[in-house]
Amino acid sequence: MNAGSAGKLSVVGKLSVVGLGPGEARFLTPQAQAALEAADALYGYIPYLDRVPARDGQTRHASDNREELARAGAALAHAASGAQVAMVSGGDPGVFAMAAAVIEAIEAGPDDWRELELEIVPGITAMLAVAAQAGAPLGHDFCAISLSDNLKPWELIERRLSLAAQAGFVMAFYNPVSKARPHQLDTAFDILRDELPASVPVIFGRAVGRADERLAVVPLSEARGDMADMATCIIVGSVETRIVERPGRPALVYTPRRSGGR
Amino acid sequence: MNAGSAGKLSVVGKLSVVGLGPGEARFLTPQAQAALEAADALYGYIPYLDRVPARDGQTRHASDNREELARAGAALAHAASGAQVAMVSGGDPGVFAMAAAVIEAIEAGPDDWRELELEIVPGITAMLAVAAQAGAPLGHDFCAISLSDNLKPWELIERRLSLAAQAGFVMAFYNPVSKARPHQLDTAFDILRDELPASVPVIFGRAVGRADERLAVVPLSEARGDMADMATCIIVGSVETRIVERPGRPALVYTPRRSGGR
Repeated sequence: MNAGSAGKLSVVGKLSVVGLGPGEARFLTPQAQAALEAADALYGYIPYLDRVPARDGQTRHASDNREELARAGAALAHAASGAQVAMVSGGDPGVFAMAAAVIEAIEAGPDDWRELELEIVPGITAMLAVAAQAGAPLGHDFCAISLSDNLKPWELIERRLSLAAQAGFVMAFYNPVSKARPHQLDTAFDILRDELPASVPVIFGRAVGRADERLAVVPLSEARGDMADMATCIIVGSVETRIVERPGRPALVYTPRRSGGR
Repeated sequence: MNAGSAGKLSVVGKLSVVGLGPGEARFLTPQAQAALEAADALYGYIPYLDRVPARDGQTRHASDNREELARAGAALAHAASGAQVAMVSGGDPGVFAMAAAVIEAIEAGPDDWRELELEIVPGITAMLAVAAQAGAPLGHDFCAISLSDNLKPWELIERRLSLAAQAGFVMAFYNPVSKARPHQLDTAFDILRDELPASVPVIFGRAVGRADERLAVVPLSEARGDMADMATCIIVGSVETRIVERPGRPALVYTPRRSGGR
């Protein structure tokens, strides 16, 4: 469907939304690698673009993290001119990342954006990397919640936390804190302390998959908002989540496959 | 911590639990590739082992899918003899797969299994591949539920479905049906029809990431259990999930990042 150098009138462009995974190149799938190499132009948030080696003849269009819809529109317009464009995204583009923003832009944009070839290239999302580092905390039913109230009311987040605890889901939190909302994560832990035992393990995975990765596990009773920043993915266990101590090695946190029905 | 050929008494073995992703090699991360290449022995369910090219000097130990704990124990015992062992798993090993079974076996097993080096290598789990193929249905808060009642009571699954619908989560279903329980998926859809509008999109992704992949999208009112088998991952949208029609291309299914609070 693509033709890099043919006449523009007959060319259908392509946009690939590419998941880079959580950090180092060891997480980058061959499909993602191929999409990056094939692109005439790369778009993305600056730290993600910085992970992709420069290549002759490939242009780079960096943007701020808050400009998601504008970035999506610029990449779509570029693809609509007949180019092969890659939008880079951390983790998996479909999980609290660029894929939904791109499709929102397509829905609201000019008709010819719907004619483009659109490829979403999945990646290792943060909770999978944090879980792998900690053991197998996502081994049973779980949910993923963004704690940012930029795009939804905080009351909805509170309600989801309560219902998720009642359902017995392990929970992964994305976007747990920001400078604009330093206290909401403490509120979230307070809500969970009303529903769950004090001993439930809480995993703070910061920059997992990068050289400076850091993992901490504390009981819910000791979990505090200032243990996280925007680069942290948090996993809160269920009442069934267990800790296996090991001599000379970090303990393993896992949720058994079998559930007693609590 | 590893030493492939040193004397057994001083050798600490290693077990890597490796996520192969949903099918084709384009999903296999460099970290997973390296773990497979470094292993003295491979363990796993036969169809997953079949995806890994044979290598001289590497032994292969295939097992049936229902023997998860026995398979985990055999791999751990082998690693405890000083070997470097890889357990292969489809998708991500931490999501309804082998990582939790391995840690359960460690917890219940002999002390020296806790001294092994254990590496969990994350992979692209099925719901991420299905979501990428369909658009961005997991673009907002979501949950993942195994519909198998082999290891938990069916009543718990029913309760989780109701609570997840009330919370407004998009839902991904793993292990949706089996020969032993052909009617439960219909029951699950009936429960959701009580809680959600008839128009909510339901995505059936079968063998996504393989040559014979098939994707179908139907409204919840038309979703039927016989549309799935054990190789299917199902994503049920929320009340906010949308469909964007495209001329000459499959429609895109996505859940907007912004939520009105329903």
